[in-house]
Amino acid sequence: MVPPGSVESLNSIAEHLEGEQTVGNLPEENEKPIISAFDSRSDLKGALYAWREILGDSHVLVDCATLDHYARSTSSSGRRPAAILKPGTRDEVVRLVIIARRCRTPLYPISTGQNWGYGDACAVFDGQVIVDLGRMNRICQVDPELGYAVIEPGVTQRQLSRYLTENKVPFWVDCTGAGPNTSLIGNIVERGFGHSPYGNRFQTISGMEVVLGSGEVLRTGFGHFEGAKTTHIYPYGTGPYLDGIFTQSNFGIVTQLGLWLVPVPESFCPYIVLFNRDEDLLDALTPLRELRLQRILQSVPHIGNDLRALALDAPFPRDRLPGRARLTPELREALRREAGIGAWSMSGAFYGSSRQVALHRKLLKRALAGVNAKVIFLPRHILEAGKLLVRLFGNLAPFQELEKKIRLGTALAGIHSGKPTGAFLQGSYWRHRNGVPADFSDDTDLANVRIGIMWMAPIIPFRQEDLALLNREMDALFGRFGFDCHVTVNMINERALAAVYTIDYDAEDRTETERGLACYEAGVHRLCELGYPLYRTSARGTELLASKSDDSFRGAVGRLKRALDPDGIIAPGRYEWLPQVHNHVP
Amino acid sequence: MVPPGSVESLNSIAEHLEGEQTVGNLPEENEKPIISAFDSRSDLKGALYAWREILGDSHVLVDCATLDHYARSTSSSGRRPAAILKPGTRDEVVRLVIIARRCRTPLYPISTGQNWGYGDACAVFDGQVIVDLGRMNRICQVDPELGYAVIEPGVTQRQLSRYLTENKVPFWVDCTGAGPNTSLIGNIVERGFGHSPYGNRFQTISGMEVVLGSGEVLRTGFGHFEGAKTTHIYPYGTGPYLDGIFTQSNFGIVTQLGLWLVPVPESFCPYIVLFNRDEDLLDALTPLRELRLQRILQSVPHIGNDLRALALDAPFPRDRLPGRARLTPELREALRREAGIGAWSMSGAFYGSSRQVALHRKLLKRALAGVNAKVIFLPRHILEAGKLLVRLFGNLAPFQELEKKIRLGTALAGIHSGKPTGAFLQGSYWRHRNGVPADFSDDTDLANVRIGIMWMAPIIPFRQEDLALLNREMDALFGRFGFDCHVTVNMINERALAAVYTIDYDAEDRTETERGLACYEAGVHRLCELGYPLYRTSARGTELLASKSDDSFRGAVGRLKRALDPDGIIAPGRYEWLPQVHNHVP
Repeated sequence: MVPPGSVESLNSIAEHLEGEQTVGNLPEENEKPIISAFDSRSDLKGALYAWREILGDSHVLVDCATLDHYARSTSSSGRRPAAILKPGTRDEVVRLVIIARRCRTPLYPISTGQNWGYGDACAVFDGQVIVDLGRMNRICQVDPELGYAVIEPGVTQRQLSRYLTENKVPFWVDCTGAGPNTSLIGNIVERGFGHSPYGNRFQTISGMEVVLGSGEVLRTGFGHFEGAKTTHIYPYGTGPYLDGIFTQSNFGIVTQLGLWLVPVPESFCPYIVLFNRDEDLLDALTPLRELRLQRILQSVPHIGNDLRALALDAPFPRDRLPGRARLTPELREALRREAGIGAWSMSGAFYGSSRQVALHRKLLKRALAGVNAKVIFLPRHILEAGKLLVRLFGNLAPFQELEKKIRLGTALAGIHSGKPTGAFLQGSYWRHRNGVPADFSDDTDLANVRIGIMWMAPIIPFRQEDLALLNREMDALFGRFGFDCHVTVNMINERALAAVYTIDYDAEDRTETERGLACYEAGVHRLCELGYPLYRTSARGTELLASKSDDSFRGAVGRLKRALDPDGIIAPGRYEWLPQVHNHVP
Repeated sequence: MVPPGSVESLNSIAEHLEGEQTVGNLPEENEKPIISAFDSRSDLKGALYAWREILGDSHVLVDCATLDHYARSTSSSGRRPAAILKPGTRDEVVRLVIIARRCRTPLYPISTGQNWGYGDACAVFDGQVIVDLGRMNRICQVDPELGYAVIEPGVTQRQLSRYLTENKVPFWVDCTGAGPNTSLIGNIVERGFGHSPYGNRFQTISGMEVVLGSGEVLRTGFGHFEGAKTTHIYPYGTGPYLDGIFTQSNFGIVTQLGLWLVPVPESFCPYIVLFNRDEDLLDALTPLRELRLQRILQSVPHIGNDLRALALDAPFPRDRLPGRARLTPELREALRREAGIGAWSMSGAFYGSSRQVALHRKLLKRALAGVNAKVIFLPRHILEAGKLLVRLFGNLAPFQELEKKIRLGTALAGIHSGKPTGAFLQGSYWRHRNGVPADFSDDTDLANVRIGIMWMAPIIPFRQEDLALLNREMDALFGRFGFDCHVTVNMINERALAAVYTIDYDAEDRTETERGLACYEAGVHRLCELGYPLYRTSARGTELLASKSDDSFRGAVGRLKRALDPDGIIAPGRYEWLPQVHNHVP
């Protein structure tokens, strides 16, 4: 028999759920699994009635078109929800949760639903009730002196960036490459990272407001002391520091948090470092780690391989390799030559007084002097001059390459200085049949246009031998499944690299999609075997990782979940570490 | 009736416990308070028997001298334990916990028991069983490339510092001023802070091993994945990030963690900034914040008032002010003049390449150019020259002041560069009857020599007006209770200051001790009223703070505690947020 709470039982619950409102096979009260979608006591109809009372009809949606919209996914399989709720305030969230608890209808919160490659707007199970927090998009407070903002989940990168510019607040937003419309809180609770000196985002938040599954509102840090003036400047408070347990978990709905902003420096200089061969990057890794440890590289530099760069330019050349999804070594080499790029490109930026920036530029050059690498600085005046040239001579052939480079350089400079861009999402069209469309913009919704991406993001030690091993292994693995191995390697902290391997697949091609999923599963297994588990994952990844975790961790996480959400109302299955055996205190 | 689990009921339990093994007044099963020392079902005798089986007689101590030793405290009241257990390994800790659970005899873990001014080696209640982890002092692993150490709770600052020096590992330990014999883990789980660029210590740990009250061993971050190579380089792992809940809590016994070490820079330069008047420091606060935000001040500079400096030199002048515990303004002014010091002194250090350090020195000078402040740099060659002068001419009067300054400068340089010192503990003798003894050393045990100190450590915004208000308020409050207001203000992060107010009292004087406690209680109340709660606290402080917290936080913390330690075996009362009313999920 399938034990209650196991992956198998849940999958079967999920399968049975389609079109159903209740399922049988109710586990005994004492063995109630935390993970469940609806059960026989669920009253979705009653809940919908009550939710409408609170939100009004226009914010409780069950029409087919809306449900279809939320079911779209860049991952191999979307999940079709049963309803969408759109609360506008924290108090409305509280009331939704209380009803959900009463009616035993779990809720799945999303911020803006753009968790590309990790599940998008989708719940873990079909037939869930999505709480779309996008309407809660208030910038509640900005302190222009201490440099923080208090924001709600619907606040996007672009929105906060614009607010700071318009109000002349001398701080920048740390940006990710996921596009201007993505939620800051959504990314932070997933523990995403950006590019700036504040790129290790979890270290830049202070003071959360969380609606628990009990309906209580929890304020972390100093926030639970009435009148505390320090909630958003010192995250830990007194007593247990709780913020961490509300990231990558389903312990509550984060409805507000304090986010620290990047002080605008006197001087700022983006840079690119080009490595022609794999060995060149490996040679550079030790001096780069030294620079990172010594805090000369203060931002989070990203290093992408040739495929990442090629994909920004053009999709997979289907005409030259019909029926294939992986370049031949010869063609890859040829494309590289055509585009004038090397094996790896690194991007970062220096921040500080002009003399500091000048000094750091020299130190970077010096550190890489013994390595076969080309360092290119992109200070503002260079980019401006380039733009001028392009404006004047852009129609002439020799300047068309320049135009592309200036555009990329400007996007890179922007992402390091608080101006989010969707430019880097164009790479996701690699396996799309039509490539990047003419009307691609920052607002293009990847799930809408049927992009297929799955990301595997292991953390590895910041060490030559680990990166060499990993790249070799992963390229071979991608090769076995017939995919190109797109990767960026990012200096998430002074000692670790976050490597992001992307499976770009044709979402319209069922075979290729299945092969992509198989590649993903094999990849996650292999990464764990090598000792490099993922730092962030999709629902499928959670299942795979959970099977590698030990009982003690799974048990503790399960008990913490029950402590805060006794009826399992919040996001069943999300980063939920399913116990292998029934989980009880020994 | 006193509700079960309330402060009153616990105090009365504690009172009844002396010499008793069990107490009556057992709460009903369903209302079992988490906080309890022993109850009627406790079997201390049976537990001691079982613990002896495991640890051997020599590591289970119940003799009077030992119990007296552990009962000593720098705080107003020590707690006398019932027994001391000294496990040598993690597995022994697990077995102790399992017995404690079976025999319902709670355990109170300490690392080296030097939590000066916050409770020392004492439990929250009398009659507890102390688990002294001092024997677990293995440095389990040091990675000389990535710069981390995996350590046990008994590892002291000095021990790790020596290990790194002897093994030529090019990294330093971040040091606190609490003395070389203090435990690194002990300080970190209290969320203490040091002086170096790694002074915000909670941000420099990765991968905990925790023995839960269930007897399970929990590994956080990636540690629960077998064979993970990234446990000690990336703290968050996948899924909920748990480390925070094991700091300032009683959720488990931390038996190991990964600690990041400070990379030895090419160049290093300590500095002191002297401010003659209160206004001068306030004037400097905005430019200093700017330097901190721009990461020019990368370490955690400490700013002490005149009293902190005076106390390092000599105790309170009892002969000149008999029967008083607070200097008159005139005498304070005179002592300041005699010692040649101003109102405030700030200390910090620059780290980096020699050109970086030179540049940062200039930027500090430039930032303070418009302020009445004196910046003194103490690079190694200056300290060495000073030492030489002292060696040659130390007997001559004009050089005696120099000798003291060089000693202090050397201690400051040391604490910023991985060499812990007890020098700054001498200030704790301010109200001691005999002052600093001739045989004072780094190994002096403050609790042993009857030092009286209580610390109040609020976090405040890094802003002129907050510091001005706070200092004014606290000095007046200390004045009302007849104490001198010793304070350091420390740049714990870019946006917040941790101010540490010390009540130095004569522990041999009962009236003064009581007045000290009254001052402490009034101070904590006032700080909360002002909106500046404490970042760290003693058992008494926890009670006071808990009454200011909201139900939702208290309730959530209580439920998390029960989830990990269902029988309340670990450290009852330690940072325990007592529910005002009986705590249940609404």
